[in-house]
Amino acid sequence: SDSYSLLILPGDGIGPEVMAEVVKVIDWFQAHRGMSFDIGHGLVGGSSYDAHGTPLTDETMARAQAVDAVLLGAVGGPKYDVLDFSVKPERGLLRLRKEMDLYANLRPAQCFDALADFSSLKREVVAGLDILIVRELTSGVYFGEPRGIHADGNNPDNEGGRVGINTQRYTSGEIRRVARSAFELARRRSNRVCSMEKANVMESGILWREEVQWVHDNEYADVELTHMYADNGAMQLVRNPRQFDVIVTDNLFGDLLSDAAAMLTGSLGMLPSASLGAPMANGRPKALYEPVHGSAPDIAGQGKANPIACILSFAMALRYSFDQGAAAADLERAVERVLADGVRTADLTGPDGGIPVTTAQMGDRIVAAL
Amino acid sequence: SDSYSLLILPGDGIGPEVMAEVVKVIDWFQAHRGMSFDIGHGLVGGSSYDAHGTPLTDETMARAQAVDAVLLGAVGGPKYDVLDFSVKPERGLLRLRKEMDLYANLRPAQCFDALADFSSLKREVVAGLDILIVRELTSGVYFGEPRGIHADGNNPDNEGGRVGINTQRYTSGEIRRVARSAFELARRRSNRVCSMEKANVMESGILWREEVQWVHDNEYADVELTHMYADNGAMQLVRNPRQFDVIVTDNLFGDLLSDAAAMLTGSLGMLPSASLGAPMANGRPKALYEPVHGSAPDIAGQGKANPIACILSFAMALRYSFDQGAAAADLERAVERVLADGVRTADLTGPDGGIPVTTAQMGDRIVAAL
Ligand SMILES: CC(C)[C@H](C(=O)O)[C@@H](O)C(=O)O
Ligand SMILES: CC(C)[C@H](C(=O)O)[C@@H](O)C(=O)O
Repeated sequence: SDSYSLLILPGDGIGPEVMAEVVKVIDWFQAHRGMSFDIGHGLVGGSSYDAHGTPLTDETMARAQAVDAVLLGAVGGPKYDVLDFSVKPERGLLRLRKEMDLYANLRPAQCFDALADFSSLKREVVAGLDILIVRELTSGVYFGEPRGIHADGNNPDNEGGRVGINTQRYTSGEIRRVARSAFELARRRSNRVCSMEKANVMESGILWREEVQWVHDNEYADVELTHMYADNGAMQLVRNPRQFDVIVTDNLFGDLLSDAAAMLTGSLGMLPSASLGAPMANGRPKALYEPVHGSAPDIAGQGKANPIACILSFAMALRYSFDQGAAAADLERAVERVLADGVRTADLTGPDGGIPVTTAQMGDRIVAAL
Repeated sequence: SDSYSLLILPGDGIGPEVMAEVVKVIDWFQAHRGMSFDIGHGLVGGSSYDAHGTPLTDETMARAQAVDAVLLGAVGGPKYDVLDFSVKPERGLLRLRKEMDLYANLRPAQCFDALADFSSLKREVVAGLDILIVRELTSGVYFGEPRGIHADGNNPDNEGGRVGINTQRYTSGEIRRVARSAFELARRRSNRVCSMEKANVMESGILWREEVQWVHDNEYADVELTHMYADNGAMQLVRNPRQFDVIVTDNLFGDLLSDAAAMLTGSLGMLPSASLGAPMANGRPKALYEPVHGSAPDIAGQGKANPIACILSFAMALRYSFDQGAAAADLERAVERVLADGVRTADLTGPDGGIPVTTAQMGDRIVAAL
C-alpha cells in the first residue's frame, strides 16, 4: 500500500474547524482505499505567534520541507493587526511559499451546478464555469528588494516625510517555469492559455509577455496562447468569464484576479487551491494545499464555516501530489452529490433554502457520500 | 459671459468619432447657455506618432499645460504593438498625466436605470449602483524608478538570462493629497471612504494605510473611513458593489479595480473619468477628461461607437473645471432621457431591443434632449 506524509497546519480562525473535517475524509481514504497517511500537525500564523512569538518556527519550516504535502487552513485575524509586519500571520504563509519554492499556485474557479443561483452574476453567465488561474507565487512585488518604509531625507515637497517602496522583479527563468505549468495544465483541459500583465505600462510586464510567448513558441506551440492586459482581464472576468480556460499571471495580479474569479462562482467557501514547486527526490512536487477563503475570524468557533474548500484542497492533493486522480474525482463527486441534495452550511443558505448543517455535519455528509 | 479654454485630443481608434459628438454638445452650450469655449485641437497616441514620431509632442504638452481643461478620446491600437515601449501610444497619455500632475483620477461607476439588465450581474445587485473610485494617477509602479529589462549577469539559475524590474514607490505626501480628494468628494456624497491596498504584503501598502488614516483623523474625522485589502476589494466589488461609496486606491490597483467596477454596470461605453491636479492661477484645477473605455480599433470608423462616455466626461468638465454643476446635471439628464427612450448604439443592443442608432445619431439625440 502507498504511504504518504502530510503536515497539517490548521492556522487561525476557522482553519482548525474546517481542517477537522478534512481529517475525517483522510481517515475514510485510509480505511477504505488502502492508502496510508503519516500525519504530523503544526502551527502557522497567529496561533504560532501566540505560542512561539513567530508566525512559523524553523522547526515547522523544516518539517514542511520534508513531507509529501502540507495542508494549510487559513491565517490571520484582527487580533494580530497590531503586530509588526515581520511577525504578522501572513509572513508564516509567505515564508512557506517562498522557502518551499512553490511557484505555481493553481486556483480553479468552478461554478457548481447546484449553486449557480448563488452568484451575484446571472446564471447564464456563470453556469458551467470552469477556469483555472495559475498564479506565480514566489516572486514579484511580494518578495522583491529593495522594500520598506524610509524617511524621505529633507524633501520639502513630501508632506509627512516618508516613502514606501516595493519592487516588482521577475527573472525570465521564473516566468518560464510557471508558464510551463500553465501550458501543461492547459493540455489536460481545453488547451488554451491567456497570459495577463500590464506590458503597456510595466517593463516587467513586457518581459512576462515575451517569455511566456517564448515558452509557447519553443515548447507548446500546440496550445492556443493569447495575451491580455490585466485591467481588461479584470473586466472580462466579470463580463464573460467562460471565455477563459487557463489564465497565467503574476503574483500580485493573480491575487486580485483569482479572488474576483472565485467570487464569480458565488461560493467562496467552496474553492480550493494547490501551490506546487519542483519535484522532490521521490518524484512528487513540493506542495501546499489551502482553501482560497481566509480565516473568517468573525464566524470562527460557531460551526458556521464551510469545510468544502478545504476538503477539495485535499482532493487536489490526491491528484497532484499522490497521483490518485480517481480518488480525487470520487471525493469531488461526493461533494457535488451532497450539494445536489441541498445540504447547506451557513454561507450557502441562499435562494434555495436547503438543509442547513454545521461544519461538522457537512463533513459527515461528505464522508457518508463517499 | 464665462470663457473657457479647451484642448481636444481625439487620439486613436474610435476617439475622433466620439469626440465629434462632444463638439456638438459644446456647440449647444455655447449657443444656448452663454458659455464661450476657446477650443484647440491636437494629436496624442498613435496618431501623433504617425505624424511626428512621438506619442506627444512638446508643443502639445505645453498647450495642455496652458488650457483650463484637456478633453481626450482614447489612445492605442494593434498597429502600434510593435513600437518600442518609449514611443507607444500609452506613453503620450502617461506623460500628460505625469507632467500635468493629475494625481486624482475620478472614475464613477454608475448603473443607469434603463440599462440595469445589460450587466452580467443580477439586476438586484447593480440597480441604483453609484460608486466613485478615486485612483492615484501620477505615482506608484507606473512611474517608479528603477525600471527596465536587464541582462541578469551570469546567473546560472536564470534560464533566459534577463530580469524585468518596476518600482512601486509612494511618498506620504502623494498619498495624503489623493486621500484629501477622496474625503472631499465623499462629503458631497454619502460620506464614506474605503481605502484599498495590500498592507498585509507590501510596505508601500502599510504607508498608504497609515497616511490615509492620518488625513482622516486630523482633517476628515467626520467621514467614515474603512480599509480593505485590494484582493478582498476585487471580491466585494463583484459580490455586493453597493456597499461602497468612495473607494480610494493606488495607481495600479485603481487600474484593475476601476475596470472591474466599470464592467459591473454593463455599460462600459457609458463611463466617464476626470483626472484632476492642483489649482492653477485662475483657481481651476489642472484637468483632463476622458472616457474609461479604450480606442476599440476593431469598430473604429463604423459609426458603432457609443459617444456617451466621452459626452459624460465633458459633463464632468462642466462640474469640476468650470463650476457649472447645473449645466452638468442638465447634460446628464439629457443622456438619461435618451436612454430611457430606448435609443441604443451597437454596444447597447441587448435584452430590450431598443432603437438602434449610429454614433452621430446618438450625439444628435442627446443634443435634441438638452
Ligand atoms: C493572506 C495573503 C498574504 C495572501 C496573499 O496575498 O497571497 C492571500 O490573499 C492569498 O491570496 O493567498
Ligand atoms: C492605456 C493605459 C496606459 C491606461 C492605464 O493603465 O492607466 C488605461 O488602462 C487606463 O486605465 O486609463
